[in-house]
Amino acid sequence: MTEELQISYEKLAYFFENRMFADLRMSLLDMQPADIAQFMEENLEEKELLVFFRLLPKELASDVFIEIDSDMQEDLIKAFTDKELKAVIDDMFLDDAVDVIEEMPANVVKRILRMADAENRKQINELLAYPDDSAGSLMTPEFISLSSRMTVEAAFDKIRRTGINKESIYTCYVVNSKKVLIGVVTAKDLLVSEKDALIEDIMDTGIITVETLEDKEQVALKFSKYDSLALPVIDKEGCIVGVVTVDDAVDVLQEEATEDIHKMAAISPTEKPYLKQSVFSIWKSRVLWLVILMVSATFTSMILSGYEDKIAHIAPVLYAFVPMLMGTAGNAGGQASVTVIRAIALGEVDFKDIFKVILKELLASCLIGLTVAVVCFGKLMLIDRLYNEISINVALLVSGVCFISIVLSKLVGCVLPLFAKKVKLDPAVVASPFMTTIVDVLSLIIYCSLSIAILG
Amino acid sequence: MTEELQISYEKLAYFFENRMFADLRMSLLDMQPADIAQFMEENLEEKELLVFFRLLPKELASDVFIEIDSDMQEDLIKAFTDKELKAVIDDMFLDDAVDVIEEMPANVVKRILRMADAENRKQINELLAYPDDSAGSLMTPEFISLSSRMTVEAAFDKIRRTGINKESIYTCYVVNSKKVLIGVVTAKDLLVSEKDALIEDIMDTGIITVETLEDKEQVALKFSKYDSLALPVIDKEGCIVGVVTVDDAVDVLQEEATEDIHKMAAISPTEKPYLKQSVFSIWKSRVLWLVILMVSATFTSMILSGYEDKIAHIAPVLYAFVPMLMGTAGNAGGQASVTVIRAIALGEVDFKDIFKVILKELLASCLIGLTVAVVCFGKLMLIDRLYNEISINVALLVSGVCFISIVLSKLVGCVLPLFAKKVKLDPAVVASPFMTTIVDVLSLIIYCSLSIAILG
Repeated sequence: MTEELQISYEKLAYFFENRMFADLRMSLLDMQPADIAQFMEENLEEKELLVFFRLLPKELASDVFIEIDSDMQEDLIKAFTDKELKAVIDDMFLDDAVDVIEEMPANVVKRILRMADAENRKQINELLAYPDDSAGSLMTPEFISLSSRMTVEAAFDKIRRTGINKESIYTCYVVNSKKVLIGVVTAKDLLVSEKDALIEDIMDTGIITVETLEDKEQVALKFSKYDSLALPVIDKEGCIVGVVTVDDAVDVLQEEATEDIHKMAAISPTEKPYLKQSVFSIWKSRVLWLVILMVSATFTSMILSGYEDKIAHIAPVLYAFVPMLMGTAGNAGGQASVTVIRAIALGEVDFKDIFKVILKELLASCLIGLTVAVVCFGKLMLIDRLYNEISINVALLVSGVCFISIVLSKLVGCVLPLFAKKVKLDPAVVASPFMTTIVDVLSLIIYCSLSIAILG
Repeated sequence: MTEELQISYEKLAYFFENRMFADLRMSLLDMQPADIAQFMEENLEEKELLVFFRLLPKELASDVFIEIDSDMQEDLIKAFTDKELKAVIDDMFLDDAVDVIEEMPANVVKRILRMADAENRKQINELLAYPDDSAGSLMTPEFISLSSRMTVEAAFDKIRRTGINKESIYTCYVVNSKKVLIGVVTAKDLLVSEKDALIEDIMDTGIITVETLEDKEQVALKFSKYDSLALPVIDKEGCIVGVVTVDDAVDVLQEEATEDIHKMAAISPTEKPYLKQSVFSIWKSRVLWLVILMVSATFTSMILSGYEDKIAHIAPVLYAFVPMLMGTAGNAGGQASVTVIRAIALGEVDFKDIFKVILKELLASCLIGLTVAVVCFGKLMLIDRLYNEISINVALLVSGVCFISIVLSKLVGCVLPLFAKKVKLDPAVVASPFMTTIVDVLSLIIYCSLSIAILG
């Protein structure tokens, strides 16, 4: 938190505690909704919430409301009078209203919908019907549409008349009589054109669109590829039904990256920020994968037990290198799988690239495996010999297995996410945690069987 | 890639091969610069580049140029005549020009600067002086400034006159006579206000700013927190020196997430997309960490060798559970460290929260450890007994160590990134790869010493 913000928060807390409400309102006026929301979350108790919220300048109230977390929203809604609830709901953009509603229990949802005016209620219900991860659930149905025969001046009139309640007014959408999207005009185009120019002469017809059911991650990637501020959402007939704005795309990109990072570390995705998660929800998000991975490690125990007598017979020192070899295999495979998983998420790599990927990983893993094996041999002869008897044969065997398991692990690591993607499983979940178990088992089998074949 | 785009690409390739240049230009007109750049990267050879580039409609040329990768940019610049180079450079926004220049070798940079006109050259040089990861390097010095005594109508005149060459015209910055930023006015505010209203009466004085030397990741997080389209960059005197736009913030968020994901998987960050990396650069980004982690695994070999005689004496079966215990410790620690690293990156958690974090992880890890230990005990008695002799004592010991090492690993995992952050090291690098080595050693020592203490 910046120092400046810290000072504002202290002022707010002081004014609120001492009931200096006029000063409080003055301070709030110059603050950002997101900062006020953060103050409320960090400093207010449940019973103070409503008092504080009622002190918010009217024009800020609903902006602050959509920024606070959903538990607080629920507490507030329950405390609101019908009139207050109606004011907040009617003042929100519809996509924000839908975001709020999606987190509420059924009885609260009913009350919200009853309070919204008829037109809003209809549109909210339509938005709620889209799948959670689709462009439809992300869009707002409030946008400015123009007709191609309008003049620039008429367009400005329409923006002035209707723009104040639209989330995005900087891109206007040109539609024909059937609401089919035929072009876009930016406010910049309008500003630099003559007043009597026709929209059809200045509109851009090379439109990037998204479809209502398109995955929201794909939608967000389009924003990042085309540097857009807003993208129109069209239905199967090509009619524009809504607009996704860049701020929502930014949130999606952040959430998807967090989700992938968590999945790769064997954590089930959670919605809340870390400090707001309960101990129980942390337990829930982590324990299942930990148990699965622990149980699947039974294979390694089986292999080690199976070879136990023979290896103890050949050279008990061989046990000492099991963690190092398995760790190296796991790390090597993880590097490949994580690289490929992220490349898939960014849309850089697809299943059709599988042979390119395999070739690249094969060559790279041979180089990497060779380097690591040489260092490993040196380490065995120089360091490990200080505390253990190690013959050249053992050192050669261990570094040889190091090489083989690096190459194999990298191949497994790069191929698994691509197959997962192909069969529409989540690459991050399937490939990263499972990959470890597979390469552990592979490297162990190779180590044990080669030990016996060569040294036995 | 969408089907539609695929078809456009096939058309372009056909027109280009058969030298149907008029058709080619027509098709290009309706395409997005990012898509044309992708076509060039995927389909053109070096010697075809210049021919194709010269066919681009003039208004698209520099937009396409900034989207192609830096190797191609370099090839093109070398092939350009001086006049062509000047046209492309002068037509770019200055922040894009700086992005291009930063990737070029010194002699190319010199030539570019020689071609740029004097004013541009001066500004480019100023931008190049900012550190690579600062707001200054991200900003463009081209923005619209207004004075507080202007009317709305005068503001529109200024936007019309100067706006066509500005990257962002939807937020205008109000400055006093010393260029100190005193307010912002959006195009929306202007559009819905009376023509003779004064800017000072409609401007917003609660301004979110960034400083020239602020870390670009922090800047990007501000965009995501405040849903901004553009943020003003101010110097120490409060004067506005440039503007960062949301499209650049989106790129930063994507790059930083990719970097963190790679670092957590022990990969040094690389700039290029996966499929464009050479085998050598893959080797370079991965081999160092793999070697470091392999060598640091020497500790585990030492510990295992040290306890070898005693453990073989007590119960050789104990070896079989080493991979499972170390794996579980590593996974448990990884869950905690990755969660905390991501929370730090998102600005949710800071060093001051360390006690909250420790308490949360301590409680969660006890719950998780208990669950996993109980399942582990069951697994040992039901599954592992099928292929191995396991006494109740051994089963109790192994599951007990499972519990202890989960709790310890989670504590190490959550504390390390916070300390790394405190001493200004990169949490993602220090905490994730190193964490594994630490918890491996810890869990192994506990396992071996408890085995001897209890069963010995």
